[in-house]
This record gives sequence, structure tokens and C-alpha cells, in this order.
Amino acid sequence: MKLLRVGAPGAEKPAALDAQGIIRDLSALVPDLTPDWLAPEKLRALAAIELERLPVLSADARIGVPVAGIRQFIGIALNYRKHAEESGQAIPAEPIVFNKAITSLSGPNDAIVMPPGSEHTDWEIEMGIVIGTTARSVAQNKALDHVAGYCLANDLSERHWQNHRNGQWCKGKSFDTFGPIGPWLVTADDIPDPQALDMELSVNGERKQASNTSDMIFPVAYIVSYVSQFMTLLPGDVIVSGTPGGVGMGLKPPQYLKRGDVVRLAMDKLGTQTQVVA
Amino acid sequence: MKLLRVGAPGAEKPAALDAQGIIRDLSALVPDLTPDWLAPEKLRALAAIELERLPVLSADARIGVPVAGIRQFIGIALNYRKHAEESGQAIPAEPIVFNKAITSLSGPNDAIVMPPGSEHTDWEIEMGIVIGTTARSVAQNKALDHVAGYCLANDLSERHWQNHRNGQWCKGKSFDTFGPIGPWLVTADDIPDPQALDMELSVNGERKQASNTSDMIFPVAYIVSYVSQFMTLLPGDVIVSGTPGGVGMGLKPPQYLKRGDVVRLAMDKLGTQTQVVA
Repeated sequence: MKLLRVGAPGAEKPAALDAQGIIRDLSALVPDLTPDWLAPEKLRALAAIELERLPVLSADARIGVPVAGIRQFIGIALNYRKHAEESGQAIPAEPIVFNKAITSLSGPNDAIVMPPGSEHTDWEIEMGIVIGTTARSVAQNKALDHVAGYCLANDLSERHWQNHRNGQWCKGKSFDTFGPIGPWLVTADDIPDPQALDMELSVNGERKQASNTSDMIFPVAYIVSYVSQFMTLLPGDVIVSGTPGGVGMGLKPPQYLKRGDVVRLAMDKLGTQTQVVA
Repeated sequence: MKLLRVGAPGAEKPAALDAQGIIRDLSALVPDLTPDWLAPEKLRALAAIELERLPVLSADARIGVPVAGIRQFIGIALNYRKHAEESGQAIPAEPIVFNKAITSLSGPNDAIVMPPGSEHTDWEIEMGIVIGTTARSVAQNKALDHVAGYCLANDLSERHWQNHRNGQWCKGKSFDTFGPIGPWLVTADDIPDPQALDMELSVNGERKQASNTSDMIFPVAYIVSYVSQFMTLLPGDVIVSGTPGGVGMGLKPPQYLKRGDVVRLAMDKLGTQTQVVA
């Protein structure tokens, strides 16, 4: 099932894609796609809806963040083997965890707003893991039970803020519009193997990142189990699971986003994003 | 005005202290002390209530987190001059910002639950800044307009997880019960100078930390303005503003919490906390 939210920022309607890829309006049945709708019994109820009998929403409408009221936005760094190898960095012994502000969340095709004076705004294609039920110290073999689904994400980063403004990475990861996710939350039953998805990111039509989630050092079940040892994960929480090689900072010479650039992301089963840098 | 929430976890009632320090039940007028109640016009409306005419709540009841539905919990590190000097660390050129999981929030007198196997759980008395209105790139001279009030906080930290588990501090700052705040949100009009408050923390009756917010390197207005350049602050967001010297990690030899320890915190105007380590 592909769930989404369609409409102007702050006024999105809950929706789902039907078998033909037509956007169907769920708002008569579901007030909004809030975290409580990600519980297994709620997702089963949504799956029982005969979507073809619901009103059609315009395919041209803006798409928003697929879940309303996300409470925690967490990142994993250096999680692709080839990326670590090619950049000469050691394979991490355990996952690096960081935070993005929830206020950085934006729709998949919303403009990327560069911070005033920014010269180091960078892209990162990632698979987002969306939590469905509260996860606290869960074992790896139970971790996927807590996952509602997956979404495409761009973990935008101001590298100077992240690395040279004293301290923790959150400074460079949290600006408004630095967290486009979507277009859809694809429920886990539609993605039996989350470790077999191709992904690709281009800037102005030039391919910059291309990989597959099979190259992850720490797979989804490991990540969810691991993070849940340190903090309780809540329904709706999004964990972006790391990016492969090809970010701007790693190019020689480095290349960063500038106004007018067009960033396009695509991932197997998870859809596409297109962002213009404003 | 001193606002608080009283009752069992998840079933707290909104309340306020009257002039005699008696807890008065606001629940007939206010569904809960959610972030929208921190807007200036809402706080003015709360201040107009004749508290003595409202029901009394037991002074023995549990006190919860003073705001329901807090969305972001942010920390500032190394923000006390004497602490930086005594530990031989340079005065930071700009604030160090980190995140605590919102799931670490707990009531001011709730037990501190040590993570399984933890040998490095440490205390940090801090003043919490509670945001009242959305703050995005605000100037220092406007920053205090966005502050609803202040609260006492203990920024508990697992030092091994924070410093030796690969990467960012959030791992050591986010365990459940690692963020006691309260007992009250004291509105800003009751604290005309937030940079003149004594604070003291003891463990088992032995004084460990004693300082005054006048020793802060970056005062409240600077912190709010600074953080708002990197991320948008929302009503209800809590920023804990750094701790003075005397944390367990800095003692010679280091001293960490163990089961049965009693931690007591007190701060001018902001009340007291007592936590037993479980």
C-alpha cells in the first residue's frame, strides 16, 4: 500500500494510490495519516478499503510529508560499504546516530531553501525507515515487526555547519526544507526485502549517486534494534539509513548545490523526488 | 505563574500554583498544557484565572513533565565559564548544540532508570528554556519574546555511550528517564533576569554542583537566537542551557550514579527535584 498526503502545506489530505497509480482521497475515512494510523491493525483496516470507490485527487497537486506529526527524525551515517571504502574511512564498528530537526521535514518535491550565505549545501539520497509501533530495546529478529514501511528521503546537509561550527552534526542537518521525504509511505508488506532496492540521485541531469540497499553495512533490522537500545522509538519516527558514495563533499573538487539546481532522486518501489534549489 | 501537570504518567491534569503554593486544578478550563497554551495571549488568559476558586489537588500527587507533547528537546554544552576553565577546556567560540530524545523526558521526581549494564550515568543540573512562539532566525534582541518561561532540568548522560560508542552525543543523552524537567514551568514574567539564578545539585546529601546562571558563557537570548539560525524552534520546545562544574565525569576520581543514590536539584524560583536511581 502506498500512503501519501496531498495538498498545500499544513492542509494536506490523506490519500492512497490505487492499483492504477491514481491518487484516491482517504479523508472521509481517515482524519489524517497521523502516527496512530501506522499500527498494524490500522494499516490492515486501511488495506481493506476499496480505493477505486473513493474520490480521485489531482495528480498535479502538491505532495506533502506522508505522515503528519512526526516526532523524531533520526539519521545513520557512513552506512554504505563502498562509500566508506572509496572515501578511505574505516567501516564503523557500530552505527553513527544523529538527529535532524523535525522542522526540516518537507514534501518530496518542495523547493530546497538554502540557508542565507550557505556555500556547502549537499545532497544525500537515503531510504527512510518509518516506525509503526513503539520500539524499546528490541531484538534484531523482532525489529522489523516495528517497521510500518519505507520512504525515499534526501538528507540535505550544510557541510560547513555540520563539521566546522563547533560540535554536533545537528546544526548542519536541521534547516527548514533539509528533510524531503516521500512521495509515499510504502508499507512493509509491499517491500519484503528492504535490502534489495536500487537508488539513484542526479543533479541537473548528471548522475551523482547510484547504489543498492544491499550495500548497507548495518541493515534495517540492525538499525532499528540498535537505536532502540539508546532511545525509545515512537510510531511515525523516521530513521534515514545512510547514503552511498557520490555526495558533493566527496567529489574532487567538491561540488555543492547552488540556486536553480535541480535534484532528482529515484528508488525502487519508493518513487521519485524532484527538488529545485531556491 | 507556575504551571505544572499532576497525576500518573500519561494521565496528568493541568494545574497551577496559587499565591500560597497550593496546587489548583485547571482541567475544567484547559484540556492540557499543550504547546499552543504557551502563546502570549494564552498565558495572559491563564494569568487572569482566580486560582483560589479552583479545586485543590493533593500536594502528594506525582508531578509530570510541565508541558504535554513537547516536540524538540535540545541541549547546549560547555556553557559555564568556570566549568570550562577548571576542566582545562577552551571557552567555546560558539555554542555546542545537541539533541536529547523527547522520549527521555520525565517528571521531576520520577526514578532515574539506569540503562542495563551502565557504569557511567552522570548528572547535570541545568536551566531549561521553554519556547512559547515559533522562532526562526530571530535576532538576539527579539529572542526573549519567544520564551514562554523556564524550568529546572537534569540532563542525565551515559558518558560511555556519549563519548565512546561512535559518533554523536545523542546516544548517551536519550535513554528513557534521562530528562527530568519541572516541577513547574515558571513563566518569563516571573523571572525578569534569567541570568541571576543560583542552582545546586547534591548526590546522597553531598553537594556536587553549585553555580549561578550569571556564569553562563552564552546567555538565554544568545542561545535562542543562535539555535534559531540552524533550525526552527516550535512552541513547547525545551533547550537545556548547559551545566556548571561538578559533574561526575569531572571528579577525580570520576564518580557515577549507582542504584539507590538520591539526586537532589534546586534552583532559585524554579523549585526542586529529587530522583532515586533505580
